[in-house]
Amino acid sequence: MADAALFEFLHTEMVAELWAHDPDPSPGGQKMSLSVLEGMGFRVGQALGERLPRETLAFREELDILKFLCKDLWVAVFQKQMDSLRTNHQGTYVLQDNSFPLLVRMASGQQYLEEAPKFLAFTCGLLRGALSTLGIKSLVTASVAALPACKFQVVIQKS
Amino acid sequence: MADAALFEFLHTEMVAELWAHDPDPSPGGQKMSLSVLEGMGFRVGQALGERLPRETLAFREELDILKFLCKDLWVAVFQKQMDSLRTNHQGTYVLQDNSFPLLVRMASGQQYLEEAPKFLAFTCGLLRGALSTLGIKSLVTASVAALPACKFQVVIQKS
Repeated sequence: MADAALFEFLHTEMVAELWAHDPDPSPGGQKMSLSVLEGMGFRVGQALGERLPRETLAFREELDILKFLCKDLWVAVFQKQMDSLRTNHQGTYVLQDNSFPLLVRMASGQQYLEEAPKFLAFTCGLLRGALSTLGIKSLVTASVAALPACKFQVVIQKS
Repeated sequence: MADAALFEFLHTEMVAELWAHDPDPSPGGQKMSLSVLEGMGFRVGQALGERLPRETLAFREELDILKFLCKDLWVAVFQKQMDSLRTNHQGTYVLQDNSFPLLVRMASGQQYLEEAPKFLAFTCGLLRGALSTLGIKSLVTASVAALPACKFQVVIQKS
């Protein structure tokens, strides 16, 4: 087990690095950095997904898999469980973290709200990657209403 | 405590990302990516250094600080201790890890030897950053003779 702060520090540096060297500071350039981060998250999520205990692969219900991510994946990465999970029972899930660790440091002022997306892209990818390893294709987006709380919306893509 | 693999996966993605988007594949461009990685390692090392228990700040001897890095820092980041520490007692230290975790995956073939520097730059920075927080200015380089063993050479800069 590694020092939990290591991931957080490294994530911060990664975000800073992608924005510092972004050749294109326009909204289009920003979008590219977000998609790079999301892609890195996806591959890390896939790799973490492959390390899951084998019995989890026997999950039959979509909801069981989502519960597993809210509990086991979140603890492995953030040392806490997701605070709530809601679903419309039609393939859309809303995962809420009331104190998302990667936002906690910037939570002192709401003026940072517009900076939030860059601290969420990696984790959206992480969820999408872990789901992909578990055989579920999805779209994952995140939104913040009041720092440091945030919601991840998972929409399952039926094949 | 976070899943130890998380840091390793993220490090791999970071290296891949820096090389994939490197605008300049010449030796000069490579050098820039290495220095970006080293800088990220430095800042993560500084931040980890600030989390060290206070009593460590009372270290008097340089050698004690180096021993501390070989033991506590290495365990926090790599879940193992450094295998050996040697010094010429004139400000140069050689830290050897016989199975450096970030090289283990590529250790199956010596043909990857030339790829090794990109997997060492972050950790050189990490050592330099942690030393900096402990009040020691240094130069840190790494070399590999036989994968996955590697040596970090720390040269203390006297002010």
